[in-house]
Amino acid sequence: MITIRKGTEQDIPAALQLVIELAIYEKAPNEVEVSVEEMTRDFNNNVFDFFVAELNREIVGIALYYYKYSTWKGRCIYLDDIIVTEKHRNKGIGYKLIAALIELAKKEKVRKLEWQVLKWNTPAIEFYNKLNTHFDDEWLNCKLIYNQLQNFNAEKQEMGR
Amino acid sequence: MITIRKGTEQDIPAALQLVIELAIYEKAPNEVEVSVEEMTRDFNNNVFDFFVAELNREIVGIALYYYKYSTWKGRCIYLDDIIVTEKHRNKGIGYKLIAALIELAKKEKVRKLEWQVLKWNTPAIEFYNKLNTHFDDEWLNCKLIYNQLQNFNAEKQEMGR
Repeated sequence: MITIRKGTEQDIPAALQLVIELAIYEKAPNEVEVSVEEMTRDFNNNVFDFFVAELNREIVGIALYYYKYSTWKGRCIYLDDIIVTEKHRNKGIGYKLIAALIELAKKEKVRKLEWQVLKWNTPAIEFYNKLNTHFDDEWLNCKLIYNQLQNFNAEKQEMGR
Repeated sequence: MITIRKGTEQDIPAALQLVIELAIYEKAPNEVEVSVEEMTRDFNNNVFDFFVAELNREIVGIALYYYKYSTWKGRCIYLDDIIVTEKHRNKGIGYKLIAALIELAKKEKVRKLEWQVLKWNTPAIEFYNKLNTHFDDEWLNCKLIYNQLQNFNAEKQEMGR
């Protein structure tokens, strides 16, 4: 039996383990820069929250989310990551996790629940399609990373706009 | 002279006015569902924060942001919207606003500052290019909106995954 419940501080090591498992699968283990200590601090500061899926007292899935803000729609929920451990996929666990998040979004009456999916991740897109998800491919993701931020010098880079 | 400073509760009516001005320009004024009261409540609950650009005591631009969470990079800053009122564009105000946000990201040592841009918004893309922004077009934005969330019924929609 799968149980879905809110994650607690005690679940963070298992949650991070799932994040790392997926990063290894995606051949990007070094991209995971957070630690249990850092996640614990941020969780206790309410930067994010998460649901866990438990099977025989083992955490086999997580859905990690936070509250975002939109100038048009106000406070909304953003699903950063939904992970089910490989050997327990195709058992409806991902659905139960996202259903728990939708129930939360419903209860909190937010105007949007949002997330992103890789364009080539067809199984995930089909899964989200069954929820009648709105997809939008009009946007580019933009980022500046740590070294760029640290080396930024406003005067030097002044661009006259 | 342009002054950039953190926004306060008193600046929210002017900030929302800029949001509405842009929505009208984009022919989507009805998409703005937030009110001054709602923004004020969320601002006081630290859901978002913003910088304002002031010219002769008038607010002519805003950069509205919040803290997001990434399972790989932890607590990061997300720029939801940067707006400069039409008659004061091309005076470097947008740059000063984003520079203030980069300085904040630098000070807080976050691993990423992120935002999105419409694919066809060439002037904005050129502007961000000068900051050596990383662009990523591999993702689709996904959302469920208010009515979908309110009408969700987990049992009915069970999808066996």
